[in-house]
Amino acid sequence: MTKNNIVTAAFVMIGDEILSGRTTDKNLNFLAANLTEMGINLKEVRVVPDIEEEIILAVNAVKNKFDYVFTSGGIGPTHDDITSLSIAKAFDDELIQNEEATEILIGYYGKENVNEARLKMAFVPKMAKLLDNPVSSAPGFRIANVFVMAGVPKIFQAMFEAAKKELIGGKRIKSEEIKISLTESVVAKDLENLQKKYSQVSMGSYPFEGGTSLVFRSNNYEDLEKSVQEMTELLESVKSDSIINFRKN
Amino acid sequence: MTKNNIVTAAFVMIGDEILSGRTTDKNLNFLAANLTEMGINLKEVRVVPDIEEEIILAVNAVKNKFDYVFTSGGIGPTHDDITSLSIAKAFDDELIQNEEATEILIGYYGKENVNEARLKMAFVPKMAKLLDNPVSSAPGFRIANVFVMAGVPKIFQAMFEAAKKELIGGKRIKSEEIKISLTESVVAKDLENLQKKYSQVSMGSYPFEGGTSLVFRSNNYEDLEKSVQEMTELLESVKSDSIINFRKN
Repeated sequence: MTKNNIVTAAFVMIGDEILSGRTTDKNLNFLAANLTEMGINLKEVRVVPDIEEEIILAVNAVKNKFDYVFTSGGIGPTHDDITSLSIAKAFDDELIQNEEATEILIGYYGKENVNEARLKMAFVPKMAKLLDNPVSSAPGFRIANVFVMAGVPKIFQAMFEAAKKELIGGKRIKSEEIKISLTESVVAKDLENLQKKYSQVSMGSYPFEGGTSLVFRSNNYEDLEKSVQEMTELLESVKSDSIINFRKN
Repeated sequence: MTKNNIVTAAFVMIGDEILSGRTTDKNLNFLAANLTEMGINLKEVRVVPDIEEEIILAVNAVKNKFDYVFTSGGIGPTHDDITSLSIAKAFDDELIQNEEATEILIGYYGKENVNEARLKMAFVPKMAKLLDNPVSSAPGFRIANVFVMAGVPKIFQAMFEAAKKELIGGKRIKSEEIKISLTESVVAKDLENLQKKYSQVSMGSYPFEGGTSLVFRSNNYEDLEKSVQEMTELLESVKSDSIINFRKN
């Protein structure tokens, strides 16, 4: 766990289909929102192709930098599913046929239907601990701080539920949003000054059609409240009806 | 341009709002599909927070590795918009007030309304060439092979239209999809053998509820056709009505 009780994470998506535009990602926002909810800060995301050296490079780049790493994709039964082997190599581990995973697959498909391709899904790194897959049985796994999960959103989400039990979150970062009818350049100077005053609150400004979302985020709840209060007063002094609404998360 | 007339690209999204889960990304799939259409292969994506050193690290990691780099986010008028400065630093360039950009902003907002925050958007790296923004005027820019664009999808898309004029695509990778009613493990072995036979065709297998999408991609159109034809025959021999449909792209 890193300083100030801030727990961090990275997400590595393994998927040619995302990079080619054939598939629209549906996992990033799910993971980001769920981690935020648990007090875990997603700090980096990478999407890499189904190429062993690229997977190893990406996983090695993030596994020592962040508390947790999640991967998605490439753990199915076909030849292009090379994530498990790549992860084993990233950890200098070997890929072995996991007994528990083998039993799970036999239980799900029936002994007579477990062909070579299906059994491929029982091969995980030696050090791996399985992650339950209630959707389609073939498990994900955890190795050290890396959680290896499926790319299909429904299975990804189910595996995240299993992973969740093993995650230790930090102090949750709360966010408060002020939606205003002003364009961001009108409040930029005030916001900048306020940011300088409250260094522990991260202040972001996001334009939308018809206004701006000001988002204040912090795990220092007192400073968060104070800075939002001050911004509210500033906004009212700029234009009395500039605030559309508030939202807390 | 890299070997075999394969043109490559990376995408660096700069955005705390994506990482916190507050905002769902809408740019990746747009960019991926458009690049594929132009014969440019998106090979890596990174999402990094609004932190200068992380932006510099990510951009430097990809700008020499790929033919083109696209960035999104962080070029607005507020204090958290630090992309332009970070990109200047990544190129050992300095941030200067661009005359053309200044004129564009004055033309759009009117001389009396161009405050300090708005003028911030006229500061780009010295070597930069502007990218037109027909939506909200403040331009993106290109520096060497890096295209720096806004994060708001509508503006991102408009800037990509401007960037497009400067991109030189390679031989387009065509894809053919065979949707089948079989689970992927049934065809895994045949697919693997076919992959070995046609090394220039990239074959992917993507399960969905009720079946599997087999996707064949290549810029060797002859091998693409031949391999799809052989797969079709193999599928018909496994189960006569296993093919749901075909789709070419």
